[in-house]
Amino acid sequence: MSGLFITLEGGDGAGKSTQAELLAGWLEERGREVVRTREPGGTTLGVELRKLLLHGGDVSPRAEALLYAADRAQHIATVVRPALERDAVVVQDRYIDSSLAYQGAGRVLSVEDVRRISEWASDGLWPQLTVLLDIDPGEGATRRVSRGGSDDRLEAEAIEFHRAVREGFLELAKQGPDRFLVIDATLSADEIHARILARTAALLPR
Amino acid sequence: MSGLFITLEGGDGAGKSTQAELLAGWLEERGREVVRTREPGGTTLGVELRKLLLHGGDVSPRAEALLYAADRAQHIATVVRPALERDAVVVQDRYIDSSLAYQGAGRVLSVEDVRRISEWASDGLWPQLTVLLDIDPGEGATRRVSRGGSDDRLEAEAIEFHRAVREGFLELAKQGPDRFLVIDATLSADEIHARILARTAALLPR
Repeated sequence: MSGLFITLEGGDGAGKSTQAELLAGWLEERGREVVRTREPGGTTLGVELRKLLLHGGDVSPRAEALLYAADRAQHIATVVRPALERDAVVVQDRYIDSSLAYQGAGRVLSVEDVRRISEWASDGLWPQLTVLLDIDPGEGATRRVSRGGSDDRLEAEAIEFHRAVREGFLELAKQGPDRFLVIDATLSADEIHARILARTAALLPR
Repeated sequence: MSGLFITLEGGDGAGKSTQAELLAGWLEERGREVVRTREPGGTTLGVELRKLLLHGGDVSPRAEALLYAADRAQHIATVVRPALERDAVVVQDRYIDSSLAYQGAGRVLSVEDVRRISEWASDGLWPQLTVLLDIDPGEGATRRVSRGGSDDRLEAEAIEFHRAVREGFLELAKQGPDRFLVIDATLSADEIHARILARTAALLPR
């Protein structure tokens, strides 16, 4: 596969969407096809699964993890791999690292099991670059509210949970320094964009 | 858990439903609560997943396997385990062995991977007894047609596939002789019922 697979990770409010848009714009100016996508919900099947997960009544923890994995399998097989095979750049909001960080913070299932199932779902596809926009969960909530967003999600779960998610992401970054680019999300959007570009440019053919 | 978990396996037309009904009747006469159930589709979530699988367009092989596993996880967690915990007998049409035999015959995914995911989905729950109603696929088709059923399914897939499924079941039975009871499905329903009872009775408390 000759394309480039880039994922953005981090808590809500860290600025993933803004950076995905800036990065996609820069790549398109350089003539690259860009596929912007997300998990969960990046396929027709995924949209249906998301509805089931959100409105389908009680779902057991293992069933939930397997539904997310099914979404991932379908998304990677039908969206991401075909795009990479035709030389596109895939810029994706959330991937395996999110599953691991959120599951690890929740502590219902073994993170190792979730990793194993995720890797199987994706048939072992890892991104060449994962940008982690790192922010304190309290700061992220303030930013979401200040731009008119709701902080329902943060109200619904304890701040401690989100701190544990953040620690999970940072631990994953420590384990995979070659793949990860960790950026302080309180920097300006332009500064963050510049750092992402520097790393992305190094991955593109000259 | 103090209940008893019995599964029925075998190709279509082997007589699983008839035997499940006879067995349930006998157990109920002896005062046992019986839960008759099936996979896939034994829960509300499972019914929705089944619809997705049948009408949701192309689903990648891994996504499909993970959706079946999600159905299993939900079914075991919300139907089977609670029943076993209240001392019921669960009589179930198809379980992990079907996944393994059909997947093995299809040869798209590794059977070992499917077994691993299935075991994780069920959190390692295996039946105390698995009745394999063994029949030649050609004979099974004839029986279905003779009782007014359609043999769409057998027309849709080559007879060789169903022969491979049968071999898969027999191989699983060979690997698990303590759990399996293999019965020639061309015997009379009464004779099959008697053999199932003999083995079931030995598993019940006196």
